[in-house]
Amino acid sequence: MPEVLDVGDGSQDALLVRLGAGGYVGWGECEASPLVSIASLVCPMSHSACKSVQASVLGQTLESVDDIIRIGNRVRENSLDLLQADHTLSGIDMAMWDLLGRRYDVPVYELLGYRRAYPKTPYASVLFGDTPQETLEKAREMRRLGYRAGKFGWGNFGKAGVQADVEQVEAAREGLGEDGVLLIDAGTVWVDDIERASQRLQVLRDCRVTWLEEPFVSGALDAYCQLAALAHPVKLAGGEGSHNYYLAQHMIDHAGIGFIQIDAGRIGGISIAKQVADYAQAKGITYVNHTFTSHLALSASLQPYAGIEHDSLCEYPMNPKPLAMEMTLEHLLPDKSGHICVPEAPGIGITPNLEAIGVYLVEVEIRVKGKILYQTPTI
Amino acid sequence: MPEVLDVGDGSQDALLVRLGAGGYVGWGECEASPLVSIASLVCPMSHSACKSVQASVLGQTLESVDDIIRIGNRVRENSLDLLQADHTLSGIDMAMWDLLGRRYDVPVYELLGYRRAYPKTPYASVLFGDTPQETLEKAREMRRLGYRAGKFGWGNFGKAGVQADVEQVEAAREGLGEDGVLLIDAGTVWVDDIERASQRLQVLRDCRVTWLEEPFVSGALDAYCQLAALAHPVKLAGGEGSHNYYLAQHMIDHAGIGFIQIDAGRIGGISIAKQVADYAQAKGITYVNHTFTSHLALSASLQPYAGIEHDSLCEYPMNPKPLAMEMTLEHLLPDKSGHICVPEAPGIGITPNLEAIGVYLVEVEIRVKGKILYQTPTI
Repeated sequence: MPEVLDVGDGSQDALLVRLGAGGYVGWGECEASPLVSIASLVCPMSHSACKSVQASVLGQTLESVDDIIRIGNRVRENSLDLLQADHTLSGIDMAMWDLLGRRYDVPVYELLGYRRAYPKTPYASVLFGDTPQETLEKAREMRRLGYRAGKFGWGNFGKAGVQADVEQVEAAREGLGEDGVLLIDAGTVWVDDIERASQRLQVLRDCRVTWLEEPFVSGALDAYCQLAALAHPVKLAGGEGSHNYYLAQHMIDHAGIGFIQIDAGRIGGISIAKQVADYAQAKGITYVNHTFTSHLALSASLQPYAGIEHDSLCEYPMNPKPLAMEMTLEHLLPDKSGHICVPEAPGIGITPNLEAIGVYLVEVEIRVKGKILYQTPTI
Repeated sequence: MPEVLDVGDGSQDALLVRLGAGGYVGWGECEASPLVSIASLVCPMSHSACKSVQASVLGQTLESVDDIIRIGNRVRENSLDLLQADHTLSGIDMAMWDLLGRRYDVPVYELLGYRRAYPKTPYASVLFGDTPQETLEKAREMRRLGYRAGKFGWGNFGKAGVQADVEQVEAAREGLGEDGVLLIDAGTVWVDDIERASQRLQVLRDCRVTWLEEPFVSGALDAYCQLAALAHPVKLAGGEGSHNYYLAQHMIDHAGIGFIQIDAGRIGGISIAKQVADYAQAKGITYVNHTFTSHLALSASLQPYAGIEHDSLCEYPMNPKPLAMEMTLEHLLPDKSGHICVPEAPGIGITPNLEAIGVYLVEVEIRVKGKILYQTPTI
């Protein structure tokens, strides 16, 4: 974007991955800092477990799902000490699934083993207004547009005092109406402070909030677990910070959450997200996508649980920046019944709009010892 | 280094941090991919929780320990979605402690609240030889040099079959002698495969190995826990992959390990490492440093548990590359009794050798939209 604002809106930039193999092309998207992930793609080797991500990907055979798994494992082994690698792999993994789906003319969800994709109920995902009045208007807009569920998050929530938060949540409920599914996202604002979080529980109960999302940072499992016991019947949701399978597994096992939220653009891609969806199902925890960028990322985020009928909610950014919308030719729009469906099309089923992307393309150049390691490619 | 080899030797490169505040200078070192951490230092903002690390550090007041904690919290909050940030912060945090120690003329361990620093028994840390014979010779060399403890790791261990591993461990024990403390580091080779790991337990018992390190990746807590139950009396060690406090806490709580190994250059610096040392002590788990680079990083890695008498082992790279040795003026050498002590000197107590560093300095340049975001500074 020409200007990136200091707000919790992930649709202000994008890191697209284009991957070719065997004459086919696939696309993916990382939910990550673009420059840092690019550096991890091309960095010089530091030692055997700190290699660039591309060292494990380029030149590999990609003809089957087994190849995707093998290549992902290679990245995790060879970049064990390269922290950013999981975020970078995420977009690559998506692109590999997209490519195979296009090659074999099937949607990704079928490659994942699902026989059909169930429609999801989108929840309109927005930032809190700066004032309760703004939040009220955003919630009314959701209702007017036909959303049955809405989520408000970030902004000043959790920072400005309990009474301010009470007014914000009440405004959201009022605007959404009595029958709407109301979700609140604290954006990790209390870090691991159970006391501060629990001061907000009463208004969440009073306003019949379905989940409180990310009261704490992802690792604060004990704090999650203690708050979960206090919050009933409000459930906790979290997990978007998970950058590998194990972190999501630990949240499911130890955080007392009701909903596990996975961003396929961070956790290592569709492959790992599907593993988490399987585990969540086995443990009776509801899987929900986390996504806040383009409809390419949105479709990718839905594939891992497309075939799980019970897990019916999905995150749907209501007011993404123009960048996020213009980046793709197709969009996943609610159908007449208000549901979102993954495309019945090969791969992820979303085509990048190369002309539109060109407008937003940022020139990046990385040189080490005078040699160019990366230069923004032409589209 | 002019040439970085594809081996598990972390001393082949270094990312130094120089930090100035109030007319004082401090030094730190990240155990991280240099290029990727540099990118995370300077990257453009993606949204409110994905800012560059420098955005939270530059211009801040640094006069007290509280300032260090505050600045670390700022980085974690503002770079929540920037995965690499924890590795980058690690070197910055060290430099902040070093700076304050120099400013107030006290060693870092005193700033951390320890009244004295206890000597540690260094274990000579090396890679396995390519053959059992090479490993035997390395172990004899350790003994000749007076080490009472030695660790062998990485190489082909765990990959070439059970019998090959048996011969390697037996060679290590033979060379180290009957009374040496023998440690084995599997370098995460079995990922989370308990069966393959357990096939090696008998030789570890037979050779009276004190710990088996990193049989699995850091997140595989269940696999750790199950193997720990099978491995008795051999204990498990792990934790170097932890990049924040919670990950180390979860290993202590859920992995059944006997030793928690923390790299202050990865976990967020001395501040977070000290938190882990406190927690480990409360839980009866032995804290050990992880370090495999320069003596600046070595001294920094010792500060967090310098005052814990019971936790007496410390990792000591026996054959670091010239880079790692030449980078500092002082070195932590075993005293007559064979122990290592942190310097009784201000800060981390190790002075970078600017002339020597200059020889190894790598020119890096990062441009975004034609603007130079980073260029290797002069020394």
